[in-house]
Amino acid sequence: MLVLIRAARLELAAAYRGLDLLGLNEGVCNHLSMMAPRANEEGQIMLVNDYGLHWSEVTASNLVGLNEHAEMVEGQGIVDIAASCIHLGIRKIRPDATVLMHTHQPYATALACMKDPELLMVHQNSARFYKRVAYDNNYTGLAEAIDEGKRLGEALGDKDILFMGHHGVLSVGTEVSIAFDHLYYLERAAQLQILALSMRKEVDLIPEEDCKMTCDSFWKNIKGYSDAHFFSMYRRLRKTQPDFEQ
Amino acid sequence: MLVLIRAARLELAAAYRGLDLLGLNEGVCNHLSMMAPRANEEGQIMLVNDYGLHWSEVTASNLVGLNEHAEMVEGQGIVDIAASCIHLGIRKIRPDATVLMHTHQPYATALACMKDPELLMVHQNSARFYKRVAYDNNYTGLAEAIDEGKRLGEALGDKDILFMGHHGVLSVGTEVSIAFDHLYYLERAAQLQILALSMRKEVDLIPEEDCKMTCDSFWKNIKGYSDAHFFSMYRRLRKTQPDFEQ
Amino acid sequence: MLVLIRAARLELAAAYRGLDLLGLNEGVCNHLSMMAPRANEEGQIMLVNDYGLHWSEVTASNLVGLNEHAEMVEGQGIVDIAASCIHLGIRKIRPDATVLMHTHQPYATALACMKDPELLMVHQNSARFYKRVAYDNNYTGLAEAIDEGKRLGEALGDKDILFMGHHGVLSVGTEVSIAFDHLYYLERAAQLQILALSMRKEVDLIPEEDCKMTCDSFWKNIKGYSDAHFFSMYRRLRKTQPDFEQ
Amino acid sequence: MLVLIRAARLELAAAYRGLDLLGLNEGVCNHLSMMAPRANEEGQIMLVNDYGLHWSEVTASNLVGLNEHAEMVEGQGIVDIAASCIHLGIRKIRPDATVLMHTHQPYATALACMKDPELLMVHQNSARFYKRVAYDNNYTGLAEAIDEGKRLGEALGDKDILFMGHHGVLSVGTEVSIAFDHLYYLERAAQLQILALSMRKEVDLIPEEDCKMTCDSFWKNIKGYSDAHFFSMYRRLRKTQPDFEQ
Repeated sequence: MLVLIRAARLELAAAYRGLDLLGLNEGVCNHLSMMAPRANEEGQIMLVNDYGLHWSEVTASNLVGLNEHAEMVEGQGIVDIAASCIHLGIRKIRPDATVLMHTHQPYATALACMKDPELLMVHQNSARFYKRVAYDNNYTGLAEAIDEGKRLGEALGDKDILFMGHHGVLSVGTEVSIAFDHLYYLERAAQLQILALSMRKEVDLIPEEDCKMTCDSFWKNIKGYSDAHFFSMYRRLRKTQPDFEQ
Repeated sequence: MLVLIRAARLELAAAYRGLDLLGLNEGVCNHLSMMAPRANEEGQIMLVNDYGLHWSEVTASNLVGLNEHAEMVEGQGIVDIAASCIHLGIRKIRPDATVLMHTHQPYATALACMKDPELLMVHQNSARFYKRVAYDNNYTGLAEAIDEGKRLGEALGDKDILFMGHHGVLSVGTEVSIAFDHLYYLERAAQLQILALSMRKEVDLIPEEDCKMTCDSFWKNIKGYSDAHFFSMYRRLRKTQPDFEQ
Repeated sequence: MLVLIRAARLELAAAYRGLDLLGLNEGVCNHLSMMAPRANEEGQIMLVNDYGLHWSEVTASNLVGLNEHAEMVEGQGIVDIAASCIHLGIRKIRPDATVLMHTHQPYATALACMKDPELLMVHQNSARFYKRVAYDNNYTGLAEAIDEGKRLGEALGDKDILFMGHHGVLSVGTEVSIAFDHLYYLERAAQLQILALSMRKEVDLIPEEDCKMTCDSFWKNIKGYSDAHFFSMYRRLRKTQPDFEQ
Repeated sequence: MLVLIRAARLELAAAYRGLDLLGLNEGVCNHLSMMAPRANEEGQIMLVNDYGLHWSEVTASNLVGLNEHAEMVEGQGIVDIAASCIHLGIRKIRPDATVLMHTHQPYATALACMKDPELLMVHQNSARFYKRVAYDNNYTGLAEAIDEGKRLGEALGDKDILFMGHHGVLSVGTEVSIAFDHLYYLERAAQLQILALSMRKEVDLIPEEDCKMTCDSFWKNIKGYSDAHFFSMYRRLRKTQPDFEQ
């Protein structure tokens, strides 16, 4: 069990560092969270960053743990109210969401500012998310209550990605690697869409059946693809900023 | 008092270094200034950079101090005429402007080149600035007289942000952290607006009442949010380029 | 012979590292491959990366070698099915393709998402590729069979560059340096085209005869130009990340 | 005299390194050149880079010197035919052009791909170049003869900047610092223009009289502004990559 707990903290800390390296974070905002066994092995906690640390400052040991009532039961620090509201709230609707990652990554967030924020099937990377994206168009200000998280959970439904209007995006995974890989490829897909739309020419969409086939190909090995990518990042971080493992 | 003076110099130097790290500076131009007690404790001075230093070269001790007549009473060096004109001039109209930061950061400055430079309420980051932005459309060449600063102060009015047509932007804060955080989020908001407008589709605007509510949420804790962000940058700078504290 | 084999591994590893430095890679996907003599000097193998390594982790000795049946006969690791399908498949049609490089580099890939993906002759860098680009518009999902590689080989025909619809690009060279240099200049040309098209003004195209003349000028010394560029990168890598030679 | 020669080599090498740091170079192409006294004090030579070195590899001592017949009379290496053609050719028409810098910097070069490549007066940085820019629309392929340089010199006329259609830009200065500063601000101005034009809204142009006044303000102190910027870069290079002084 202790090994499992340690692994969860290491992976989540590496995700913070990796997304910073990729430029997908914003200030000291946004949050990546993960459900893990509590250190005393009694029940589960939600691991999340101590508010105010830059993502490059997050380490395995400075992550804090919240219980289901948003009380800090491991570590010390402050948890952004938005983090507990969004992450705990969504998990009330989606208890299977072991890992949740919420960012304001620029290209995907720009789509979330459009009347029609649809992720268009312009590229293989887009097709990875075919019929796996939900859209919430009911922006209601900063998330400051559990109910807002629940509302977002309802909007997410059974999808893997949520575009939050005027706000950002969110990915769901059973593993840190999967939620991490989703955000990376979502941003790549959104970048291609925006570059393509910036030209004054017609964009080409992948036919539905090819989207489906491509998507199936990705998802039959989603953990394999995601692990390969995420753990390559993990090794790079160990080499260049090993203090995240502290 | 000496502690206060030291803190002012450290924070302002960190703001120069941090905005350089974020790519919001241009050449050796633009200026960040702060009112602080004079070292001899007689009255206030305006701390500002010695002209010609790259922002990555600014340190706590090489900042110079000007009195209200633009005479250098602390440190030695040259102060860009535009710095004293803009910063001293604005403070004649806005004596509450402890900290003023003026940049040519690319996305916000691109908006300042438009017939209608309005910061559109496309995103939560934009709503932070709801009804807090003033626009000056009367570009009159390089700022070379105190009167131009006063004119800009009039244009600014009681707002927190000024878009200076064909020129750049300016933020006001009671703290270094606040003016710094404003510029960061203003650039993020402007980037989203430009990316959104580059697509050939309809942009979605946040309804006025939601803008107001979001803006209120930010501002009831503006020092808290700004400090969290700015001091995370401060810690990163101490780690990677600690000479700014000299 | 051993010297030749060593040189092949060094150059191919440097190409992985260099394209990473230039930001032309994506996750741990895409592949650069090269035909080289087998270490036992019996026939040829295709050198390619061990799947899962980030391009910054590739070294001369961790490249693996596949025979024509996609069996790993040198080194150990995993080869992405897409790598063997695309690269071995194309070489069945183009046995002269000593080096093949396939990426999802953002600007060129954005063109590959358009109904008309044509590389327009807007710049000298575009003219380098005059009549040397093929376009495949028949995206069929992730490449998972040798036949898909053959199909791409047919689409490539006798050209040097292939735009793969909804997918990415591919360059062919008799040398590592040439295929590397192609990808670099192709991305520069695509970037210029997209920036030019993003303005609401008329783009100017180079007349056909000037395209032809410019293209001829490049190609009469293509190895010279490519070597100069690639080996400058090689020297930079030796200085900053010499472990690629291991 | 020896001090002067040494200073010329140091400054020109720093310009290569600095423009690389700013991302304004392309592969190992393009050239920065400067007229300087010959080491034997007999007449002048044109200092330029040894072809094939990346700009980050250029040092004071590996610059080579050409006489007016394009013969290498100092140092050893290869000079790109385009360098001698463009730079020596232009100086036949503009003997006052002590320093010439030619790049393919992306934003300015994208303008050079337009039917109407005009640098619009959208920003203070644009106004610096008011009536100081020439446009050549007669692209004739890679520059491979002195006559092409002369033709470019005629197109340049008495201006400070030349937009070379489908090709790139060129700046002229009496000092390294001035030609360097021109390229930096030209790219900033072009970036603003392209960002502004990418929005679907009306761009605002500075009235002619204000352009003139702003331009005059810049030029009455052009050496002062340019020196301040360039020598801050020089100091940064001494700190981070001091081998350029070798």
